[in-house]
Amino acid sequence: MHSFQELVLKFNKGFDTPHFPSNPASLYEPGDYFLSIGGKRIRPVLCLLGNELFSEIHEDAYQLSNAVELFHNFSLVHDDIMDEASLRRGKATVHTKYDHNTALLVGDVMLVRAYEYLQKIQSAHLSKILQLFNTTAKEVCEGQQLDMDYAKMEKVNMDQYIHMITLKTSVLLAASLEMGAIIGGASTSNCKHLYEFGKNIGIAFQVQDDYLDAFGDAALFGKEPGGDIKQNKKTFLLIHALEVANKDQKLALEALLKSNENDKVEKVLEIFRACGVDTWAESSKAKYLKAAFEHLEAIAVTSERKKPLIELANYLMNRNQ
Amino acid sequence: MHSFQELVLKFNKGFDTPHFPSNPASLYEPGDYFLSIGGKRIRPVLCLLGNELFSEIHEDAYQLSNAVELFHNFSLVHDDIMDEASLRRGKATVHTKYDHNTALLVGDVMLVRAYEYLQKIQSAHLSKILQLFNTTAKEVCEGQQLDMDYAKMEKVNMDQYIHMITLKTSVLLAASLEMGAIIGGASTSNCKHLYEFGKNIGIAFQVQDDYLDAFGDAALFGKEPGGDIKQNKKTFLLIHALEVANKDQKLALEALLKSNENDKVEKVLEIFRACGVDTWAESSKAKYLKAAFEHLEAIAVTSERKKPLIELANYLMNRNQ
Repeated sequence: MHSFQELVLKFNKGFDTPHFPSNPASLYEPGDYFLSIGGKRIRPVLCLLGNELFSEIHEDAYQLSNAVELFHNFSLVHDDIMDEASLRRGKATVHTKYDHNTALLVGDVMLVRAYEYLQKIQSAHLSKILQLFNTTAKEVCEGQQLDMDYAKMEKVNMDQYIHMITLKTSVLLAASLEMGAIIGGASTSNCKHLYEFGKNIGIAFQVQDDYLDAFGDAALFGKEPGGDIKQNKKTFLLIHALEVANKDQKLALEALLKSNENDKVEKVLEIFRACGVDTWAESSKAKYLKAAFEHLEAIAVTSERKKPLIELANYLMNRNQ
Repeated sequence: MHSFQELVLKFNKGFDTPHFPSNPASLYEPGDYFLSIGGKRIRPVLCLLGNELFSEIHEDAYQLSNAVELFHNFSLVHDDIMDEASLRRGKATVHTKYDHNTALLVGDVMLVRAYEYLQKIQSAHLSKILQLFNTTAKEVCEGQQLDMDYAKMEKVNMDQYIHMITLKTSVLLAASLEMGAIIGGASTSNCKHLYEFGKNIGIAFQVQDDYLDAFGDAALFGKEPGGDIKQNKKTFLLIHALEVANKDQKLALEALLKSNENDKVEKVLEIFRACGVDTWAESSKAKYLKAAFEHLEAIAVTSERKKPLIELANYLMNRNQ
């Protein structure tokens, strides 16, 4: 058994190597550049944790981890194009450092590379894993499309937002765990509980992310809060506020959304607090965490084996401390 | 045994149906739109022909055909973004009818959908097919990158051009045949010969395409010739002309490349003819066809079984008549 920190090191040891041939360098050098700028590697480690929850880590789980990390990076490269993001983890995005067409092809070839790692899975589990991987990959694309659609819509309700955020971020966390579990020989019932654990952790994480972007401490959060508010981003907080605000608060909020005043962030936060959005976010996060841990509890393995997953969840859920 | 025309009909019967769920419509409707505008469906039919060269068509070959056609359409949707093409088969391209971000995601999800069809291949051949499919997919991306790189380069030599065009168009034709043959139970040696047949047919087809764009009859070719010349596109013809032209011809050609005179096309064609580019193209096409048919000849099945492939090759090679 390993802690998730140990698994990050084990994963990185195998992953920190070029994933592409040298030619054509105009295509593959940008690919390796983006992979080299790092990341928390949460998803591949979830694959390893999913496997180790049920049995010793099989070589296939490393292939799966590579595939999942390549897939995640493919989606980041393409999302950065769509979101016109110039920085990722403090470094230039692919389309900024190179150009749009290169970034498009780099993403494409990363996705194909992900399938090359999957294809190396020799076991009888390949078909099951491919099926879950493909379903998840489509859902991630759907989530990104919905995110773009919602940005253009006047009103988005809470169910729509949760649906979008589940597709865009949670299903890959959930599937990483389940695919690892499949390699570990888990039963269907255990797989499903583990998937739901990952999905609920993902939503809880997003609630926290939205909360920190509004109420976080700049020094601890690593960036100035209020970014979402300045961009009028539809978040858990804004959607909830618009649903519970009284008439005056709602009018004030809607007016602020159309404005670009210097004290916009402060004023929005004032309304958020008046609507109880901050305490609601805490209890909403707790609700998803509770659901997650109930699913973890239901998995038929000893408590001892679940410890690394609990540690990872706690690490993810306390990143403002 | 079926003719390729019969196989087009059989393939279309299964393929002409929505390939995506209805939601989110903003993502999937554009995908089905693009698939519905048709195409010659050469690649999926090559899968079926590859299978039937060795045995009765297996259900897996239809899954493979769907995967290959989805992959081809993925590459077209993304290429159209990169090439800023507004029309494809006389219809609006996805990024023109919708927008760039949608087209990017539609391409992504088509590629995932291709893998969903592959995943349905139940046979023991899945691993071999995935491997060839992935290698080919990467090569197609490499070909597109090289094509973009070459457009910016001052000089491209014949070997570079053949390498690029092989990756960009020939390997998918070749792999379609070979993957079909794998399903048909072909030996490794037969598979390799069939791959080389497809690859050489692909290059011959490109020589012909470049030739027709310069010397074709507008009424038969379906479009006004000279498009490549107007765009200074590096084609088989231009590259060969620059390699064999005498000093005066070369200077004249280089001056024409920098100009936009009304009679640019005529003048370039005049130099092409003076350099013997037209007859060279004919003999070059014949050379690749000869190589293709030698590989077909080497495949250890009766001549009778090879007839549909010969008919398809003749159909592709006589499209100016």
